[in-house]
Amino acid sequence: MQNNRMNIVVAQSGGPTCAINASLVGVFKRGKLSDKIGTIYGSVNGINGIIGDNLVDLSDYLKTDDDLDLLVNTPSTVLGSCRYKLADVEKDETDYIKILETLRKYNIGMFFYIGGNDSMDTVLKLSEYFSKNNIDIKVIGIPKTIDNDLCGTDHSPGFGSAAKYVAATVQEIARDSRVYSVKSVTIIEIMGRHAGWLTASSCCLRANGEIAPHLIYLPEVEFNSEKFIEDVKRVQAEHDAVIVAVSEGVRNEDGNFAAEDFQSQKSDAFGHQYLAGIGKYLENLVSDKIGCKVRSIELNVMQRCSSHIASLTDLEESEKIGAKAIEAALDGKTGRMMCYVRESNSPYTMNISDVAVSETANHEKFFPTEWITEDKNNVTDEAVDYFLPLIQGENTIKMKNGMPVHFVID
Amino acid sequence: MQNNRMNIVVAQSGGPTCAINASLVGVFKRGKLSDKIGTIYGSVNGINGIIGDNLVDLSDYLKTDDDLDLLVNTPSTVLGSCRYKLADVEKDETDYIKILETLRKYNIGMFFYIGGNDSMDTVLKLSEYFSKNNIDIKVIGIPKTIDNDLCGTDHSPGFGSAAKYVAATVQEIARDSRVYSVKSVTIIEIMGRHAGWLTASSCCLRANGEIAPHLIYLPEVEFNSEKFIEDVKRVQAEHDAVIVAVSEGVRNEDGNFAAEDFQSQKSDAFGHQYLAGIGKYLENLVSDKIGCKVRSIELNVMQRCSSHIASLTDLEESEKIGAKAIEAALDGKTGRMMCYVRESNSPYTMNISDVAVSETANHEKFFPTEWITEDKNNVTDEAVDYFLPLIQGENTIKMKNGMPVHFVID
Repeated sequence: MQNNRMNIVVAQSGGPTCAINASLVGVFKRGKLSDKIGTIYGSVNGINGIIGDNLVDLSDYLKTDDDLDLLVNTPSTVLGSCRYKLADVEKDETDYIKILETLRKYNIGMFFYIGGNDSMDTVLKLSEYFSKNNIDIKVIGIPKTIDNDLCGTDHSPGFGSAAKYVAATVQEIARDSRVYSVKSVTIIEIMGRHAGWLTASSCCLRANGEIAPHLIYLPEVEFNSEKFIEDVKRVQAEHDAVIVAVSEGVRNEDGNFAAEDFQSQKSDAFGHQYLAGIGKYLENLVSDKIGCKVRSIELNVMQRCSSHIASLTDLEESEKIGAKAIEAALDGKTGRMMCYVRESNSPYTMNISDVAVSETANHEKFFPTEWITEDKNNVTDEAVDYFLPLIQGENTIKMKNGMPVHFVID
Repeated sequence: MQNNRMNIVVAQSGGPTCAINASLVGVFKRGKLSDKIGTIYGSVNGINGIIGDNLVDLSDYLKTDDDLDLLVNTPSTVLGSCRYKLADVEKDETDYIKILETLRKYNIGMFFYIGGNDSMDTVLKLSEYFSKNNIDIKVIGIPKTIDNDLCGTDHSPGFGSAAKYVAATVQEIARDSRVYSVKSVTIIEIMGRHAGWLTASSCCLRANGEIAPHLIYLPEVEFNSEKFIEDVKRVQAEHDAVIVAVSEGVRNEDGNFAAEDFQSQKSDAFGHQYLAGIGKYLENLVSDKIGCKVRSIELNVMQRCSSHIASLTDLEESEKIGAKAIEAALDGKTGRMMCYVRESNSPYTMNISDVAVSETANHEKFFPTEWITEDKNNVTDEAVDYFLPLIQGENTIKMKNGMPVHFVID
């Protein structure tokens, strides 16, 4: 009785990850199992697809188990994304009215928004708007971010895969850096403007007996360039090839990004401010103050899209949290963000629950300063224990012509 | 009768790759099978280990099949590397005398040098020196380079793995670049100062129906910044997210690196010349001339050390060419570089042979200009046919704690 069923819509928002499509698959598969749910729509480019009446029937694209498997292994957001924040409804109700219009038009009873902090703001605002106006549309947030900075959840879908890429890649770079018998410093710049989780995850190498990275700098504590040079010199006394992992967002004592002074002093041939990252800044610093061989490496978007080395744990959990979101909405919940609750590290056991989205929207969860060493240049073994379970397991991906196969809606 | 056997030594030189250890394993395993060969030494840091009497008995480290399997899957050079060029013997015989001293001391009858152009120069000089002085030590070169610029061989060990990384990564970046519904340009800078092989290998995506990269620029033909902007604008008319693959070494009409003008106009806060690559240069150019969202990405050392996505074909061939080097030396050959001879693309069949090292030392093999499109901004399907067989097959790597396990001599 398709006509008695409500329809639902799912959307993806914010920066892409390797696991955001897995959560979409979780929503889709669990939704298909419910006799209360009819058509499962996808909104193109996040909330903008709902505002602009640009929905697709996901069944038109996801026809076979193979399609679903492929999509789980496809990085980025298959429905596209957006970075759009709803205005406060008191100031401007326009978007809310358009959203309601679209949701009514398609007989939508549930809206699932997969995203980060900003997306949870949308979940919060919409769920409050609907409640206030006695509109029975459930709004559920599904977390997603490689930054792992969402409050209310032990960790975020997408983070484990990014951390696994970082760990494997830092290890390979460490191997690479040791080929010549000369003193060298390799600086690896890792994403994280405010939270150091992903940079800190490079500590996982320790579990395999690696000493690298020798130094880890996070935005949660003050960064000092002079101390950095001292740190490098000290490590260099024992190791020819020094590996440094640094968050893009480390800040100096004034609270400014450490690379900012460097940047503001120059502009390029076009008169643009040179957008140097912290890696290039530290590369020049080492070159100037130590004078040894030095290289900086940005892991760039590869750290969020290298699905060929995704964490199986992350993908499985991400799919599961999508399915649980459906169950939460079927239970009548709204204005909630799904979350992971870790029960133990070893053996790793984890439950999926939900929290009031107001607790997570517009907040950031920082890397615990008690897991940062006193010297502010590394992390403690508690961090290794926290990260390791999240990077476990390798996914079997379909290959064609020697390259991974992705699922694409054109 | 160990004492009647000759000993042999193998060394690794030049930039690291994912397959240079596989060739070492090939030498070691095939050497072990011969009743003419006794101890198999490894020279630490290339030829420098022989000059400085720093050899290790590889059997002390490579004890089990597991060790050998791990080593095949370990990137970089397990024995360390060097960038050292022997002086002409007429000008300075010092190194030659030291080398001979070490080789005599260890009763070495064969020297295998795994490396690129510069290493083949060492093979050439040493083999000529030994021949001229009636010294019966065979010297055989085993090719290795991610640049694929060695003459005399269809392709080079290590290249296929780098190309596979490039293809998979460019595909993932293409996925990532399409999340927002805005015009964007993503510039991917790929290694290759003089030869465009690795950058060109991004064309493999075509085999899987991908359109990206939309533009490919190689050092073999002149690069013109104005034409580049025209190219981007033309592609942008059809595709929101433009992907550009560019060799670090593209040159303008004067024969200078295209990024040079940009670099020379500024220096950083320390007064250093800013070592911008072509990617950053083009990023700024797009920003200035088009003004859309733009990002540049350097694949950096990851393109030569990401053994977690190595090409099985490359690793198997690289091990085989190491074994064949032993056989060539046992056949009495010297002053030869081992080489691949391709018999057909489809099905891919390949033989291993050898060429006079004089034909390959100090020469560079460039990407064929007839495989570059008339517009000088892409490559033809002949390139796809050439590259595809080299990136086939995935290696099963040993994982521990969610990360690849490497073989390390500490």
